[in-house]
Amino acid sequence: MQEHVAGAATEPGVVACSVYADGKRIADITIEEAGAWRDRPGHVAWIGLFEPSPDLLNRVQKQFNLHPLAIEDAGQAHQRPKLEQYGEALFIVARTAQMLNGRIAFGETHLFVGKGYVISVRHGASASYTTVRRHLESCPVALSHGEDYILYAILDFIVDNYSPVLEEINREVEGIEDSIFDNSLQLGAVDRLYMLRRELVRLRNAAGPLLDVCQRLEHADVLPIDPPMLPRFRDVTDHVRRIKEEIDTLREVLAFAFEASIMVTQMTQNEITKRLTAWAAILAVPTIVAGIYGMNFKNMPELDWELGYFVALAGMLAVSVGLYFWFRRLRWL
Amino acid sequence: MQEHVAGAATEPGVVACSVYADGKRIADITIEEAGAWRDRPGHVAWIGLFEPSPDLLNRVQKQFNLHPLAIEDAGQAHQRPKLEQYGEALFIVARTAQMLNGRIAFGETHLFVGKGYVISVRHGASASYTTVRRHLESCPVALSHGEDYILYAILDFIVDNYSPVLEEINREVEGIEDSIFDNSLQLGAVDRLYMLRRELVRLRNAAGPLLDVCQRLEHADVLPIDPPMLPRFRDVTDHVRRIKEEIDTLREVLAFAFEASIMVTQMTQNEITKRLTAWAAILAVPTIVAGIYGMNFKNMPELDWELGYFVALAGMLAVSVGLYFWFRRLRWL
Amino acid sequence: MQEHVAGAATEPGVVACSVYADGKRIADITIEEAGAWRDRPGHVAWIGLFEPSPDLLNRVQKQFNLHPLAIEDAGQAHQRPKLEQYGEALFIVARTAQMLNGRIAFGETHLFVGKGYVISVRHGASASYTTVRRHLESCPVALSHGEDYILYAILDFIVDNYSPVLEEINREVEGIEDSIFDNSLQLGAVDRLYMLRRELVRLRNAAGPLLDVCQRLEHADVLPIDPPMLPRFRDVTDHVRRIKEEIDTLREVLAFAFEASIMVTQMTQNEITKRLTAWAAILAVPTIVAGIYGMNFKNMPELDWELGYFVALAGMLAVSVGLYFWFRRLRWL
Amino acid sequence: MQEHVAGAATEPGVVACSVYADGKRIADITIEEAGAWRDRPGHVAWIGLFEPSPDLLNRVQKQFNLHPLAIEDAGQAHQRPKLEQYGEALFIVARTAQMLNGRIAFGETHLFVGKGYVISVRHGASASYTTVRRHLESCPVALSHGEDYILYAILDFIVDNYSPVLEEINREVEGIEDSIFDNSLQLGAVDRLYMLRRELVRLRNAAGPLLDVCQRLEHADVLPIDPPMLPRFRDVTDHVRRIKEEIDTLREVLAFAFEASIMVTQMTQNEITKRLTAWAAILAVPTIVAGIYGMNFKNMPELDWELGYFVALAGMLAVSVGLYFWFRRLRWL
Amino acid sequence: MQEHVAGAATEPGVVACSVYADGKRIADITIEEAGAWRDRPGHVAWIGLFEPSPDLLNRVQKQFNLHPLAIEDAGQAHQRPKLEQYGEALFIVARTAQMLNGRIAFGETHLFVGKGYVISVRHGASASYTTVRRHLESCPVALSHGEDYILYAILDFIVDNYSPVLEEINREVEGIEDSIFDNSLQLGAVDRLYMLRRELVRLRNAAGPLLDVCQRLEHADVLPIDPPMLPRFRDVTDHVRRIKEEIDTLREVLAFAFEASIMVTQMTQNEITKRLTAWAAILAVPTIVAGIYGMNFKNMPELDWELGYFVALAGMLAVSVGLYFWFRRLRWL
Repeated sequence: MQEHVAGAATEPGVVACSVYADGKRIADITIEEAGAWRDRPGHVAWIGLFEPSPDLLNRVQKQFNLHPLAIEDAGQAHQRPKLEQYGEALFIVARTAQMLNGRIAFGETHLFVGKGYVISVRHGASASYTTVRRHLESCPVALSHGEDYILYAILDFIVDNYSPVLEEINREVEGIEDSIFDNSLQLGAVDRLYMLRRELVRLRNAAGPLLDVCQRLEHADVLPIDPPMLPRFRDVTDHVRRIKEEIDTLREVLAFAFEASIMVTQMTQNEITKRLTAWAAILAVPTIVAGIYGMNFKNMPELDWELGYFVALAGMLAVSVGLYFWFRRLRWL
Repeated sequence: MQEHVAGAATEPGVVACSVYADGKRIADITIEEAGAWRDRPGHVAWIGLFEPSPDLLNRVQKQFNLHPLAIEDAGQAHQRPKLEQYGEALFIVARTAQMLNGRIAFGETHLFVGKGYVISVRHGASASYTTVRRHLESCPVALSHGEDYILYAILDFIVDNYSPVLEEINREVEGIEDSIFDNSLQLGAVDRLYMLRRELVRLRNAAGPLLDVCQRLEHADVLPIDPPMLPRFRDVTDHVRRIKEEIDTLREVLAFAFEASIMVTQMTQNEITKRLTAWAAILAVPTIVAGIYGMNFKNMPELDWELGYFVALAGMLAVSVGLYFWFRRLRWL
Repeated sequence: MQEHVAGAATEPGVVACSVYADGKRIADITIEEAGAWRDRPGHVAWIGLFEPSPDLLNRVQKQFNLHPLAIEDAGQAHQRPKLEQYGEALFIVARTAQMLNGRIAFGETHLFVGKGYVISVRHGASASYTTVRRHLESCPVALSHGEDYILYAILDFIVDNYSPVLEEINREVEGIEDSIFDNSLQLGAVDRLYMLRRELVRLRNAAGPLLDVCQRLEHADVLPIDPPMLPRFRDVTDHVRRIKEEIDTLREVLAFAFEASIMVTQMTQNEITKRLTAWAAILAVPTIVAGIYGMNFKNMPELDWELGYFVALAGMLAVSVGLYFWFRRLRWL
Repeated sequence: MQEHVAGAATEPGVVACSVYADGKRIADITIEEAGAWRDRPGHVAWIGLFEPSPDLLNRVQKQFNLHPLAIEDAGQAHQRPKLEQYGEALFIVARTAQMLNGRIAFGETHLFVGKGYVISVRHGASASYTTVRRHLESCPVALSHGEDYILYAILDFIVDNYSPVLEEINREVEGIEDSIFDNSLQLGAVDRLYMLRRELVRLRNAAGPLLDVCQRLEHADVLPIDPPMLPRFRDVTDHVRRIKEEIDTLREVLAFAFEASIMVTQMTQNEITKRLTAWAAILAVPTIVAGIYGMNFKNMPELDWELGYFVALAGMLAVSVGLYFWFRRLRWL
Repeated sequence: MQEHVAGAATEPGVVACSVYADGKRIADITIEEAGAWRDRPGHVAWIGLFEPSPDLLNRVQKQFNLHPLAIEDAGQAHQRPKLEQYGEALFIVARTAQMLNGRIAFGETHLFVGKGYVISVRHGASASYTTVRRHLESCPVALSHGEDYILYAILDFIVDNYSPVLEEINREVEGIEDSIFDNSLQLGAVDRLYMLRRELVRLRNAAGPLLDVCQRLEHADVLPIDPPMLPRFRDVTDHVRRIKEEIDTLREVLAFAFEASIMVTQMTQNEITKRLTAWAAILAVPTIVAGIYGMNFKNMPELDWELGYFVALAGMLAVSVGLYFWFRRLRWL
């Protein structure tokens, strides 16, 4: 996966690396300068990394004195969403989701947050936080809240990005629902229903543990969060809860859709068998009559009747037509 | 969605805006006067808004000094039901439900409650609280309890409005049940069962979190509720719990109905196939006999018998009739 | 629903109204005398009401100074089982169940218990507590424990009455089970299984919350219960727990029975289709042979053979019989 | 149910009644002597009863001063497993299970344990504790721990006896699994699967609450247990937990087996229908050809060809054989 | 099961027995020397046993003064994963899993950890900890943390070994999924799906309780763990949680796959029956026409027409071809 590196950062793996004070970007810096800047009161270093090399991570670690275990985790993807506190620093793992070619592409973001710095490390498919950065730079009042606000903005952005995924799945499910009930369900749609169920399980695994993360941030049992920021994190928690509820709803709906399609397929089977039975009955009569008058007995009086043939034909037709309408009335045809 | 604005309020988005004291309406006021009135002891300002503009919300905020995050939430629908406390004020989100054209139409009500004021903000399909207002104005004793009683009355009204929805679903399910067991289930009914299941999931999502809201109000861990009002809120909690129980029961019943319809469809399939098999057997005999006597062998003694044809016909008939009654005894026909 | 009013009480809605002291009934009284009696130490007024009028309830309220909200609840059925404490008085709602014409008829009992009085208010189908009263009057030692023992006796009676309902359902399910596995399942039995599942959901809703009620009584977190009575209430709790376990077991068994009947119906379908296929194969051979020798080619040597016809007949028979036994060996017939 | 009474006890209902000191049996006594013996320090009276009469229970009660409610419970079966403490005595109800004729036979054991005595009361099908007694008498060191060790030994014995039941069910399920996947599933096996599911629900109800009993014994929140014995009870708890886990696993496996058998039955249905369709197609061709050349048109040139008949036969055969191999390639045959 | 014994240990049942100090192996010792070594400060004895004899276990017990109940447990397999504390020593049971010939082979490891020693006892199929030992010996810094680090390394190794099992199951499930949706599902695959579901239940039982074990180690409520090691154990806990999540996901996916295969099988049944019905209809027409012109009526004008035969043939063909294309348009063929 390629990454378009924005901002002044020119090093591979570094998406952006700037220092903010009073809500304004005051410098684009290198990793090695970051430690010095963050020690100045009121200054926040915000560094964005994308799939960094172990070497780059080690250089970052030295600047901010991060815990080795957290750095170890940050170097590899496939973590469960979690929040861990090492001394005065927070380490947060979140999973991101995007819809790519009809499948959910998952990515991971690892965040280090401490007094005077926010470091985001992205792995895999995930939207760049350049959008968040630009948005924050455009409202200095918000940004002047410092690292807590940046953390909030990133988490909010991650959670916001789940919504389009759910909307796309929802739209697709509605399409399949229609095809179930107008009896045009194809094997491909069942396959798709199945895939969506699988994807939703993975999505729930990605979003579910994030609720714990947000709740812990909200309840201020972790160190560096400013009390006035807590309602913001409560908002994110609410948002995650809503996302989770939607995932669970969709999962239930998909299960219902599966059951409904089994039901409808079975009703169709009944319809077909009824039709088969009806036509077999309708066609049996002329077959039998024709068979009877095809026998070679010497003495078969009807055969010599002038109109025998026509009477027989008319009889066959009459019985068949009669049966046909009888089956129609039974709704077998 | 249109809204018929009642009362003296003439501003768009404002349904009603009055001041009450000692259980009586003493004035219809404008938004800008509200702040002054609510500071007078014993006076309560009750404002009803419907899908207000951001500008209107801001004007309301200034009068009552509401928290910006709550105002942000109130400006948009699609919140989860919740109760939040900002300083001395409560912010409550509840979801309302009504049956419209066979589907549940959901609405949202956001409530701001504080010393001397109740503000309701409605979004989407929901019954106007004009009914509540009229009812309260007609019993001044109750209304004289102030803002807590108004809050109770509005919540009670919201919960009460779930009942007709459940009753209508219940009635419909009973109709479908009958059609399952008298074997007249149509595809449309399965579609309907499916839709009802979906709707119930959404209804549970709307009503379920309300239980938490009411329980927190009941347990007085939130600021402005008067202790003598607590049993009232306990009553509402009980009511929500009953609604939730009914939703869960209906959900189970719908699942049973689905299973039952699968079962009955399969039994029907058995019936049809039995019938097909029985008729195939009955008709096979005359077909074979006719085929045999239609062969062109030189030496077929029966063909020359005077009564051969009639004996053959009688034999065919006898075997067929015999089989028919045999299958009847087996209950295949 | 009619109610045969027992005892000395002659007022409509009042089933019984007596005063007890030292385990003996010392007077049958009117509502208006009750308040005075209950104030005498060692005296207990026990009043039984059946669907009382609002006016009657108000008169009772005045005598015992009951909470208006509890009286409001007692005047109408469809409450959830609950225990509420108002000052020194307990208000308990319980749901009763009886089997009537193959359906569970639910009733409600509301109990007011306080120092010196027990008031029971019954709604809908429920056994009269006259039995309990007679039983207690016959063992004065027990009755002399006062209002707690009466409360215990009534709750125990309510819980006891669930057992015959469960036994009847159990018996019916066993009958249906037999018909599933001897392949005589009728549509009516499926309908019945379905109804029983519905009823059990309602029964669980009625009995389940009673467990909370009993547990709170047992754990003495409510005021007026005598410590030596606590083991009695523990016994009732155990009993409710056993009832709940039986309900859950029955619900599981019914779900299994549904699944089993789907399974058996499908196996039957297989049997029928196998039989259809086998008979179609057996009968196809004579049909084809007869067709062949019914062709009108000039040169068909077999037709001129003296024994051609008999050889053909024998051949048809031989192949058919051979196929028949082959299918038997395959267990398709 | 009959019971072979062992030991010196000759009274009906009394299985054994002995006194132990220092790990050795020092006397076989009568019920009336028991109270005196248990007061001597270091002596333990161990009494085993089987379905005792109310009178016998009352005599036991007097000797050990047991609580009347516990005695009431002990006189009747159908209690839920539980642990209750009356003063310094423990009353424990446990359910036992044994496999008898392919069904689980449940029994009940009620235990009274206090300073200086253990009384076991058995109801219904359950292994006699004579085995436990003999085993303990053979290791005096263990027995010298007194009543706690006896209680432990009995509970351990009860839990141990669940294992053969589970093993037998497991063995049977494995047999049925094989028959599912080699397509030889019979109706009887489905019936058996169904019965096993029912039995397992009952077994879980019997074993599940025992976990609570053991956990309470282990956590020493009940009076008379010696701290050094606690790890023993922790072992029993572990054992019950393992039994419960096995029951849950078996329940899941049985549910899977049910689903699998539905799946396999449906695949079989497909196979049969494919075969039916294939043979119908193969046989249709000769039937039609024979029908065509059986028509009586004057001018049918093929009929006069010298080899017409043989060509027709060969054609029929060729098409049928061709179709046969075509269907084989499609795996329909 | 055979075990290749590594290291200097030559006694059967002893895989390795060494003493470490400052992160370096300083001696390979015998069991009888172990007790003396572990008393020296800064020395750790690490003993690896494989299915030891009771005698060997007793000798180990004497050296380290282990609790008899723990030794009893260690002597036999089939324990549930658990952590128990005896005095200053920990006893841990963990279950290991490996994929062998398409089934999960489970083993057990019992660990004794105390001041100055780690003893691992392996039962059944499990990877030898020689790998762990070699890895630790190659990084003396880690090993110098002592017994806590060794415990961590062993647990981490056990949990790591679950991953390949899950990956293999995942791979297999994906193969079966493909065969479901390209309609080539064989009975063998259903059998395999079933087996995998069973295995996963067992795997969950093995891995699930390990979470409790790790959480207790992480939360330092057990004695001998060094606080600086806690984040390490938190990492293992996270890992177990992820494994559990994957197991649950796989279980859900397998359940979906079962449902999907039922659904697809049913759709296939519909396809086949539609095809059967269509071909029966197409072939019925020529059969009937041939039957009619095979009748022996004297007066059948068409029979005498010069082109009658050819017209009849053309008519049959036309109708059949017409029906064929009609059914194609209906997608029945």
